[in-house]
Amino acid sequence: MRKKDVKIGLIGFGTVGTGVVRLVKSYQDDLLKQTGTTIQIERILVKDPLKNRPLSVEGKRLTTDPTAILDDPNIDIIIEVMGGIEPAKSYIQRALEKGKHVVTANKDLMALHGDELLHLAEASGCDLYYEASVAGGVPILKTITDGFSSDRITKMIGIVNGTTNYILTKMSRENVPFERALEEAQSFGYAEQDPSSDVDGLDAARKMAILASLGFHTGMNVDDVTCKGIRNITVDDLAYGKQLGYTMKLVGIAKRDERGIEVGVEPTFVKDTHPLAAVNGVYNAIYVYGEAVGETMFYGPGAGELPTATAVLSDLVTVVKNIQLGITGKNKSHTYTEKILKEDGDIYANFFLRLIVQDKCGVLAKLADWMAKEEISLEKVFQKPYATDKNEAELILVTHSASKKSIEQLLSKLKQSDLIHEIKSCFRVEG
Amino acid sequence: MRKKDVKIGLIGFGTVGTGVVRLVKSYQDDLLKQTGTTIQIERILVKDPLKNRPLSVEGKRLTTDPTAILDDPNIDIIIEVMGGIEPAKSYIQRALEKGKHVVTANKDLMALHGDELLHLAEASGCDLYYEASVAGGVPILKTITDGFSSDRITKMIGIVNGTTNYILTKMSRENVPFERALEEAQSFGYAEQDPSSDVDGLDAARKMAILASLGFHTGMNVDDVTCKGIRNITVDDLAYGKQLGYTMKLVGIAKRDERGIEVGVEPTFVKDTHPLAAVNGVYNAIYVYGEAVGETMFYGPGAGELPTATAVLSDLVTVVKNIQLGITGKNKSHTYTEKILKEDGDIYANFFLRLIVQDKCGVLAKLADWMAKEEISLEKVFQKPYATDKNEAELILVTHSASKKSIEQLLSKLKQSDLIHEIKSCFRVEG
Repeated sequence: MRKKDVKIGLIGFGTVGTGVVRLVKSYQDDLLKQTGTTIQIERILVKDPLKNRPLSVEGKRLTTDPTAILDDPNIDIIIEVMGGIEPAKSYIQRALEKGKHVVTANKDLMALHGDELLHLAEASGCDLYYEASVAGGVPILKTITDGFSSDRITKMIGIVNGTTNYILTKMSRENVPFERALEEAQSFGYAEQDPSSDVDGLDAARKMAILASLGFHTGMNVDDVTCKGIRNITVDDLAYGKQLGYTMKLVGIAKRDERGIEVGVEPTFVKDTHPLAAVNGVYNAIYVYGEAVGETMFYGPGAGELPTATAVLSDLVTVVKNIQLGITGKNKSHTYTEKILKEDGDIYANFFLRLIVQDKCGVLAKLADWMAKEEISLEKVFQKPYATDKNEAELILVTHSASKKSIEQLLSKLKQSDLIHEIKSCFRVEG
Repeated sequence: MRKKDVKIGLIGFGTVGTGVVRLVKSYQDDLLKQTGTTIQIERILVKDPLKNRPLSVEGKRLTTDPTAILDDPNIDIIIEVMGGIEPAKSYIQRALEKGKHVVTANKDLMALHGDELLHLAEASGCDLYYEASVAGGVPILKTITDGFSSDRITKMIGIVNGTTNYILTKMSRENVPFERALEEAQSFGYAEQDPSSDVDGLDAARKMAILASLGFHTGMNVDDVTCKGIRNITVDDLAYGKQLGYTMKLVGIAKRDERGIEVGVEPTFVKDTHPLAAVNGVYNAIYVYGEAVGETMFYGPGAGELPTATAVLSDLVTVVKNIQLGITGKNKSHTYTEKILKEDGDIYANFFLRLIVQDKCGVLAKLADWMAKEEISLEKVFQKPYATDKNEAELILVTHSASKKSIEQLLSKLKQSDLIHEIKSCFRVEG
């Protein structure tokens, strides 16, 4: 059942949708050579057909009626780039039920309902690919599925949100506070007017859920991912990090060992010698540690019209090849690992602590005593005067590997003590 | 024709072969889950069955007779990790003719005869994969073939030889000369006793031929790759680079535009802001520029027992899946771009020049005049005293984009002039 031409229904005609139409047009020859078929964008679902667009398309191709695409038997593949949960989910379900293959860039949807949709696709004999949902132009999902098929991934650390990486790079390089860096990101269009899903870490958490599901062969959901954003980070924090040889990044960390899985997003000091430390601006990178292969990293643009559209099109090429080979409906990743999420007592890391303490004899000894009781030992410590009029000193501590739970217990003890005036910050350290 | 178990013949039992046997054993369960078959290393071709090995294998599995593997109808897949051109080539040809699929790590062979072998594989309905031949643990060939299927790659810059990257990192960080860094690399086993294929760039050239063939959809051969090694690089060169914000790397550059293709390996100053500048030690990285996606980079271990074995096994998983799906013999990359190699007059880059000149009035003017005649303009220049007793000065120049031919013509003029006492170095600048 080799096909001579493949017809596409495009759902959504915003930035990424425009990029898809552009690329299909400009790479028509290459696509034909690679797949043996011409690829035709048959119809595009839009809200307003009369809207002014950067790219002109014949009016008859535009429709406001989803069934004109989902129920058209001539359409082989749906590309969903409208985003959001509903109605995108219903559209995709209907398409799969009608035997259409689906390519989506929708991270929100795949992080929440990926498992359900992949099952439906498999049951319908249809393909469902979503490379563009994580790290735009970096083909990380294919890399994890195919490149690491013979290895056991034990750790992934991702800079998977370009907006926050831009803000942190700006804060660190130019010494400007969070609010000003955010404003600039907004003025360049790197951040939304309501930036919360980026700066509070939710966007990164969604992508980490998708990565962890594929990398660990288990069904992870965005609700399984702990999440902390970058709003409270100060230039002082970054400056102390620099002195210690650390760069601040909002990273997603997914780790597994024989005791279980942890997946979380939080601001983290990455050692300057770590390859992630050099990833700046709106770029994304995913560091993948495989038991056999060791350290690898995959770097590229995390968003943008053409990078994201490229990822959509590479999925499209895969689907068209699968159609030609008669092997669609087989890309459901095997989820054979039981999902055992770790408790805080089982999650270990190094931590950076910055405290304002009473500047008197015995404070450090007291602190060391509390830490010993929580089985926390120190790698580095330094103290300097803070507000001398209030007789305060500033204490910077970096711990050896300690459990998250013991750090939290320590912090709650510190909060109750008169000796500790303020807990300025507490960050994970990686690398 | 789904198979319940797949039998492997392993040709070569050195470092990588040992890694393959180790991984097949330790990931047996994962491999079964992913492919639905058990994978069994049936026989191993060795030179000396009685040799002491780091891994013990039943004696009956070892053979010194290639036909015991190549002619055994029970063996489905050959893994070739013996290296070299012959007899590896004959073995692979025979295996393909007998309908066996082949996974190889042999860069020498693929760089020289890849096109021929891929054609034979296709004609025989067999798979031939060679991920391990470039950048060991980095799944770069899959990434180029699948991840960039919908983009047009216009540039690849690769640090694809770990030995030379180790030596240059060492020279740069510790200010030691080439010979001492090489000795250390040899003592750690990172360099061979005869290091010429690494330090003279041939190993990197082979890998660039493979990358350029796949990335540009054309049949590139190692003879199409220009090649210059790192023997003549001095710590002075590296120090000047540092001052200018450059890091010295032995890189392979493959570029194409409407006028043709250039592929070459040479010591190059990479700007410190470029992601390749941070790739240190024995690590490899390939920077890929796609017309639509923009900048991406793929980083990981370039060699080593387990990293390379992982790449071999990921190919193995692909082949086993292809067997199950009944789609073997279809992985020949489409070579539809005509191979037009650029002449030096069409190859443009920025260049760094270090000259010892006569320290007298008018030298710079004369030099500027020669450069203008060759249409070379300057981005940076600085001069400092060199051997004052001989009335000599040292001149560092960085050009704007200029053709290789015009730089060569300039250099030959400089050699003939009394004003120029020595041409210390001339390097390409990228980033």
